[in-house]
Amino acid sequence: MVAEILSVGTELLMGQIANTDAMYLSRRLSELGISLYRHVTVGDNPGRVREALRAALGRADLVITTGGLGPTEDDLTKEMVAAELGLAMELHQPSLDQIASFFSGIGRAMTPNNAKQAMMPAGAIVMPNAKGTAPGCIVEKDGKLVAVLPGPPYELIDMFEQQLEPFLRGRSDREMRSRFLHIVGIGESEVENRLIDLFHSDNPTLALYCSPGEVTARVTASCSLGGDPSGMLDAVEREVRRRLGDALYGEGIEQSLPKVALALLQQSGRTVALAESCTGGMLSSQLVDLPGASNALIEAHVVYANQAKVRVLGVPAELIEQYGAVSEQCAAAMAEGAKRISGADCALSTTGIAGPGGGTPEKPVGTVYIALATDAGTQVKRLQLRSDRTRIRTLTCLHAWNLLRTYLAR
Amino acid sequence: MVAEILSVGTELLMGQIANTDAMYLSRRLSELGISLYRHVTVGDNPGRVREALRAALGRADLVITTGGLGPTEDDLTKEMVAAELGLAMELHQPSLDQIASFFSGIGRAMTPNNAKQAMMPAGAIVMPNAKGTAPGCIVEKDGKLVAVLPGPPYELIDMFEQQLEPFLRGRSDREMRSRFLHIVGIGESEVENRLIDLFHSDNPTLALYCSPGEVTARVTASCSLGGDPSGMLDAVEREVRRRLGDALYGEGIEQSLPKVALALLQQSGRTVALAESCTGGMLSSQLVDLPGASNALIEAHVVYANQAKVRVLGVPAELIEQYGAVSEQCAAAMAEGAKRISGADCALSTTGIAGPGGGTPEKPVGTVYIALATDAGTQVKRLQLRSDRTRIRTLTCLHAWNLLRTYLAR
Repeated sequence: MVAEILSVGTELLMGQIANTDAMYLSRRLSELGISLYRHVTVGDNPGRVREALRAALGRADLVITTGGLGPTEDDLTKEMVAAELGLAMELHQPSLDQIASFFSGIGRAMTPNNAKQAMMPAGAIVMPNAKGTAPGCIVEKDGKLVAVLPGPPYELIDMFEQQLEPFLRGRSDREMRSRFLHIVGIGESEVENRLIDLFHSDNPTLALYCSPGEVTARVTASCSLGGDPSGMLDAVEREVRRRLGDALYGEGIEQSLPKVALALLQQSGRTVALAESCTGGMLSSQLVDLPGASNALIEAHVVYANQAKVRVLGVPAELIEQYGAVSEQCAAAMAEGAKRISGADCALSTTGIAGPGGGTPEKPVGTVYIALATDAGTQVKRLQLRSDRTRIRTLTCLHAWNLLRTYLAR
Repeated sequence: MVAEILSVGTELLMGQIANTDAMYLSRRLSELGISLYRHVTVGDNPGRVREALRAALGRADLVITTGGLGPTEDDLTKEMVAAELGLAMELHQPSLDQIASFFSGIGRAMTPNNAKQAMMPAGAIVMPNAKGTAPGCIVEKDGKLVAVLPGPPYELIDMFEQQLEPFLRGRSDREMRSRFLHIVGIGESEVENRLIDLFHSDNPTLALYCSPGEVTARVTASCSLGGDPSGMLDAVEREVRRRLGDALYGEGIEQSLPKVALALLQQSGRTVALAESCTGGMLSSQLVDLPGASNALIEAHVVYANQAKVRVLGVPAELIEQYGAVSEQCAAAMAEGAKRISGADCALSTTGIAGPGGGTPEKPVGTVYIALATDAGTQVKRLQLRSDRTRIRTLTCLHAWNLLRTYLAR
């Protein structure tokens, strides 16, 4: 099946938002084994929407539209789909009832404009919107499918996952399954080198997604309906794990190093404290972003100023004077201080030069020390990161979580 | 002038990255008064790139391509531009020299593939790449312009700003100027209501960009060449300021509440300490992300657990027992404790229920208290935020910075 995405929204052409809907759908279609050759974005203009629809229907079996389902006159995606496919617009009473009950729920009167959101192309499969007022729909005609989705990402994602994805799976003559393997500490090209022959396979397919400091490998396998491609996935996963070893830190579509570190802390009933200089609270924030962090995080201290390192964590002033605040010694003393004052089972610290100023020939911008203090002693690691301030801090956090993860996983 | 953006890259169709290049260019073209009716994305496929180019040249005066300038065989954007415009590809010696010197600089041999990056459509204006190896170019033929930019965002942004934007300004028969005004504490629809009549103006134009909790108003004015549209901008800016009052917190394309708060701290020579519970280090991290934060931030404490609030900040255990950790009293005691132990001139605190668990009928998920302790006393504010965990924390930070900003700006 060949698909095309048609995004409708003047806000995209004004650069007010990035087209994350297209990214999300692209990724999900790729997991479903549906080929995608084109994204097109047009504004809320009837002529251009209809022209883009016609062109897309000429090229693809499935056109997924996003946006243009709002209550205003500008919102005309469904109307153009109906016009292009030669279908009338009809009132869909269950949608109208749902919109009316939404408005009575918030104590406001429904406007005639909102009723427009319940109008659907005749014969459409209506997809109720669990997260907003605009329902979507699937229209089929002459062997072509048009799926109409709302623009707001949380509405679109929910509708795709709950309704469109099952529909598309039902239309497929194949069973598709994907697995996601998360890798840290090896660059993209090195991961590619180690897995190079696996990319040549048509089934399962292997693809890499990169984010700062991390690589995610997606393995997708298909088999005929009623079968189970798990065995094929197992074989590739085993091979990937063998070649990447300890660099493979987790699996699942929504996985991250802080999540893995938190899970390891929780499993072992251990607690952590944090002492942050250059990361400035980012490490702590990444942990607190996860539900359940309160079990594991005793406390965190952002000791950006030297006086705070001394006063809050008990780092000896002479140590900072002798070795500097960005040093192996200071990182170790920070972690040990945080462990001591908090009573946590282990403590992570970060100290470094995030730039843009503050670099020296011996310790250029990007020089960072991270330390982990545990009952078994203190480990320190020096990093030399080449990037801007925000990214140096982001990568420092990644390395710090990886230090903790490696320790806890032993 | 009508423009169209053609993004080339299979990674976009696989959903590996969001098309932030298209968002950036859309925004910048809109500031330049250039109309944009369409984005098209295709993969690294010669037939589809060329077909999309032809269609774009049929509709637009200016086609901006992004991506497909790498050294591999897949990278063929320039080649397809040349083919479609009937131009030969020629070696551009200065580009070859630059690429060769880049490789000798990192001590590696240049491959023949890299030499391909120095081939250009005949007659093109070459745009050197200050951030990478792939130069871009501008090609003009039969009244149509094609601008070829690299895909990596930091390369593209630099090349646009340093080279393509001045070129496009030089082609315009108008002078364009934009101003950005940042607004907090009023929702988008309320901002729209207050400024509604100003949206009807063709010159200057007014547009709103929204991000969580914030709205940015862009005012763009044009006048004939050699003139200065500043007076027109002044008039609209004055009017926007009058209608939005204190909600307008800053100006400039890269402005943020933490930046404004830091600038106000620096101007007044004052220092701050932070005591974070539900924000968990995010507040601190936002400040430390700014160069120069070390002058102003004494220290931050993430006291997520109640025992840490008591031990680190000296919040009375009875107070927590009586009122709860998410209370006006606890927020005040946290801020006052942080001010006291750090010796900072002022201290901000946050405590709240970020969810998904922990809500009660009196204090549902999204109940947050923020406090600011200063020599003049302590202010506390209760927020009732409706969103998910990450967004509740993000919005809490925004409100906290706004509390500090409002105090310092008095």
